[in-house]
Amino acid sequence: MKNNLTVVKLGGNCMDDPALVHEFLEQFAGINGRKILVHGGGKMATSLGMKLGIEPNMIDGRRVTDNATIDLVTMVYAGLLNKKIVAHLQSLGCNSVGLSGADGNLIRSSKRHAKPVDYGFVGDPESVNDNLLYELLERNYVPVIAPVTHDAHGQLLNTNADTIASVISSALSAMYSVHLLFAFEKNGVLRDPDDEKSVIAELTHASFNQLRASGKIHSGMLPKLTAGFTALEHNVKQVRIANLKNLEQQQPSTMLVP
Amino acid sequence: MKNNLTVVKLGGNCMDDPALVHEFLEQFAGINGRKILVHGGGKMATSLGMKLGIEPNMIDGRRVTDNATIDLVTMVYAGLLNKKIVAHLQSLGCNSVGLSGADGNLIRSSKRHAKPVDYGFVGDPESVNDNLLYELLERNYVPVIAPVTHDAHGQLLNTNADTIASVISSALSAMYSVHLLFAFEKNGVLRDPDDEKSVIAELTHASFNQLRASGKIHSGMLPKLTAGFTALEHNVKQVRIANLKNLEQQQPSTMLVP
Repeated sequence: MKNNLTVVKLGGNCMDDPALVHEFLEQFAGINGRKILVHGGGKMATSLGMKLGIEPNMIDGRRVTDNATIDLVTMVYAGLLNKKIVAHLQSLGCNSVGLSGADGNLIRSSKRHAKPVDYGFVGDPESVNDNLLYELLERNYVPVIAPVTHDAHGQLLNTNADTIASVISSALSAMYSVHLLFAFEKNGVLRDPDDEKSVIAELTHASFNQLRASGKIHSGMLPKLTAGFTALEHNVKQVRIANLKNLEQQQPSTMLVP
Repeated sequence: MKNNLTVVKLGGNCMDDPALVHEFLEQFAGINGRKILVHGGGKMATSLGMKLGIEPNMIDGRRVTDNATIDLVTMVYAGLLNKKIVAHLQSLGCNSVGLSGADGNLIRSSKRHAKPVDYGFVGDPESVNDNLLYELLERNYVPVIAPVTHDAHGQLLNTNADTIASVISSALSAMYSVHLLFAFEKNGVLRDPDDEKSVIAELTHASFNQLRASGKIHSGMLPKLTAGFTALEHNVKQVRIANLKNLEQQQPSTMLVP
């Protein structure tokens, strides 16, 4: 019988609202048992970059991570946001340890191919040091993971936080019964994006494919759902998409089912 | 019989020279056995702050850490510098884990009293979670510590890296035979600050007090030596001050003796 592990991914859009982050962290600190937090980045890197004269470089609406941008992302995600979350959780009695993917070789990624589009220093995870997480969890530490990884050749890489939550959950499924929760500002996957009450309670892979084909999936939802279904395929016990104020599932949310 | 542990503190002035850091890290990665790196901050926080319109606020030549500055310091020290060092060490096969003092409640500090002078968010260490370091060291991880601590009430604090190296070394002396090395751009404590060959081979606490009273100690050297002698008083086995290119002590350096 495996022990339970809760992995919560906090959406990047929430990161810019301190009151919302505060409310989330209080709920997160209250989760019983072993847990991990993966956080996104938010817009602070962009706004800080603008002040520093680092113009966002976009191709087809997607950000290119050049040299200045990976430094910026590392400072903001793995530095400021990660350590503020950790200090905050410490004040709530939650003994958290902030990590990037470089720390302890936690997540080794490969730089995405420059063709067809060169997105720069963006990394796709290739391996997870699940043993480091296991050792920390078994000593009652709460890992808090920033969306920055490394290539094992000295280069830091920008990696999608949904993907990180998925690969971490998958890797730890060998040791734990993993419950993965994508927490963000909406109530779940909505039938009608403008109606927070239209939460789809259960979403199968087949209906996800249908919704995707019909273009009804909101752009930010696509990586989340893809990451979620990938986790389910890798023996993650349960995957949910819920409002960040609803970690205890007292309100409706979306459960992904195979 | 205790195992050996080498704690190296890399001076902040070196942090702004990537070639020098590279050379240092190659030597550091080559040190056999258990080891910890504590790094300083350097001038990058100041130069980045200037670009962001954060003017250094100085009282009697010492920096005041206001709200904007502690954010800046956290970004640069615990984010950019720490993760770049970790990624670099990973590329050298050294499985490092970057930590701030908030991570795992590693170093809890108290904010320095606002009287006689209010230096803002500056923290003096009060306790060390030596167990976290022990667990990492015994699993062959190499902790890399940034000079940022926390007060356990959610506030991050700016803490002198020499002091961090000293309190960490002292705390771990119960478990290890600790060799503490302050590595920087000079060859050691010099009789004549302009002559790199005038290295004092052994400095006693009594002669340190004499030199200090006569005003012959260079300003940046004072916290280093104070931290070093404090470590010796707390059962640290050996304390040395050496050039960062001389980690293996093939050239002269200064040894502190009680």
